[in-house]
Amino acid sequence: MRDATLRDVAQLAGVSARTVSNVVNGYARVTERTRVKVERAIVELDYRPNVLARNLANGRSGQIAVVVPYLDTPYFAELLQGIIPRARERGYNVLIDQTDGDPVHERELIRRGARGFAFDGMILSPLGLAQADLSDHDASLPLVILGERTSASTFDHVGIDDVQASREATRHLLDLGRRRIAAIGDQPYPTGEAAQLRTRGYRLAHEDAGLAVDESLVIGTPRFNRADGAGAMTLLLDRDDPPDAAFCYSDLVALGALHAALERGLRVPEDIALIGYDDIEEGRYSNPTISTISPDKTAIAATAVDRLLQRIGSTEPLPGIEVRATHRLVARQSTVGRLRG
Amino acid sequence: MRDATLRDVAQLAGVSARTVSNVVNGYARVTERTRVKVERAIVELDYRPNVLARNLANGRSGQIAVVVPYLDTPYFAELLQGIIPRARERGYNVLIDQTDGDPVHERELIRRGARGFAFDGMILSPLGLAQADLSDHDASLPLVILGERTSASTFDHVGIDDVQASREATRHLLDLGRRRIAAIGDQPYPTGEAAQLRTRGYRLAHEDAGLAVDESLVIGTPRFNRADGAGAMTLLLDRDDPPDAAFCYSDLVALGALHAALERGLRVPEDIALIGYDDIEEGRYSNPTISTISPDKTAIAATAVDRLLQRIGSTEPLPGIEVRATHRLVARQSTVGRLRG
Repeated sequence: MRDATLRDVAQLAGVSARTVSNVVNGYARVTERTRVKVERAIVELDYRPNVLARNLANGRSGQIAVVVPYLDTPYFAELLQGIIPRARERGYNVLIDQTDGDPVHERELIRRGARGFAFDGMILSPLGLAQADLSDHDASLPLVILGERTSASTFDHVGIDDVQASREATRHLLDLGRRRIAAIGDQPYPTGEAAQLRTRGYRLAHEDAGLAVDESLVIGTPRFNRADGAGAMTLLLDRDDPPDAAFCYSDLVALGALHAALERGLRVPEDIALIGYDDIEEGRYSNPTISTISPDKTAIAATAVDRLLQRIGSTEPLPGIEVRATHRLVARQSTVGRLRG
Repeated sequence: MRDATLRDVAQLAGVSARTVSNVVNGYARVTERTRVKVERAIVELDYRPNVLARNLANGRSGQIAVVVPYLDTPYFAELLQGIIPRARERGYNVLIDQTDGDPVHERELIRRGARGFAFDGMILSPLGLAQADLSDHDASLPLVILGERTSASTFDHVGIDDVQASREATRHLLDLGRRRIAAIGDQPYPTGEAAQLRTRGYRLAHEDAGLAVDESLVIGTPRFNRADGAGAMTLLLDRDDPPDAAFCYSDLVALGALHAALERGLRVPEDIALIGYDDIEEGRYSNPTISTISPDKTAIAATAVDRLLQRIGSTEPLPGIEVRATHRLVARQSTVGRLRG
């Protein structure tokens, strides 16, 4: 018996070949009723579309890659939950990879992408590679970068205004009367660009208030995770002049710092107030809950996918644009206490 | 100028064509030095291997799918961090999808996989589909299920001994003198199979101790997340006869329950002791830290990948096997208090 063809399926289901193709490719614009009819016909005829052959013909893989430094970072997990369904609605599967912040691995992935290995475009949260490094790379790979743009580039950036958000977070602590505010999460140039934007906002808030920054309170950390936050807080609390507040560059850093402070028997926020960044769910259930900068993650995920598919679909190179999603400061127990939190 | 071939790259790099192929495919058994040599030659010659054509020839996509109910579940994020590098070492990319526990979506993904749409095999954590449903499906898809086997099947299962682990967790609470122990996370047959194994262990521990289970303390939750844990604990604490301990079916459930208990002004573990399941990092930084059942996630991830690739590589169907990774009980502050925790 010869293998069933797309046309056989269309005939049995009583729909056009294009409709069968839409169902097979997972495109959204098919009614549930039609989809079921087509799927029944596919099963009945044991039709096996040759996706590889089809992709070979149109030169597309029907896949996009999302590459983040660490998959166990809740912020990225929450973003992925917006990215995956959005891509699926548009007929794309999502390949995921993590780079461990390794610039060699980031470069390798971009190179593979540019050579049409397995995906048609990439959403990348770079950590090891500075933006200037990225600019050197093959412009033929449709690329959307998560995070604010710090230099001119040929790809798109989707993020929030990190400097402004960090300025607001620090001002919130100053408004509460705190005067020895640590900044936990600084990272050196050139790869720590996201961190540097946050340090800049921290400095600007002090300038706004006419206060000098005590440079010894600006603490570098290798990553933005719980262990980094706990380690930095322990060092700060060992000092003769510990801080009375900390602006932490991620909620994970704040949660680690909180843990270290409570283990020392300190009260949060009475003895030390803490604010984080990212608004991950964990910070809404911690004890106390964590004040934070909340980026509009839904908008960031949707914009990153839409913009990437626009680049993939475009026959000529598009200029790199920067999209800034909104953010808001959410004051919870770690700064304003249990009564108001 | 004609396009560069694999042979051109091999000649320039001074290696065999097979070595170039290994580098292009990302296989592990290439030294760093050779890899760099080959990559330099690839860049110099602007060689673009046609992966799609190659896959068409061997009928493989070089991809595996990992399908979980919810990507923002830290347990899965931590497992993925083991799965992705293991697969990459073996030359496979990892496609990720989440099903939201929707049986229609789970079924659809398996069907697509069986028809060779985009991946060669699948590691699945089913939630909406019962194992009996899965058994109906196309046996031609190499499939590894995360979680204990509850019925005979043609695919592999990788998990821990859930009944035994749950029995140990409950016994730990009984050993501390607790007598009104809630079970939070029960789910109804047939889809809540993982939950039912845990309830069975909870019951067995009571039997072992010669104690009756108060059925009103076995609490069902729709998912295993923070909100479920907080909601269940709030209901339990509203009762005239609240529990003095809770065995929570995930760390997230325990973290939600902890939050609700502390918001009520209760002391943990003095007023109510809590133990979770999964040993996610969050439970090591919460205040108090969370006692838990710690599965050997590294072994689960590695075994799932290795077994799947074995199934993919096998020319004939392999029998379904069950692999049980080890687990251990980790007693932290939420059961034994700060002094010992």
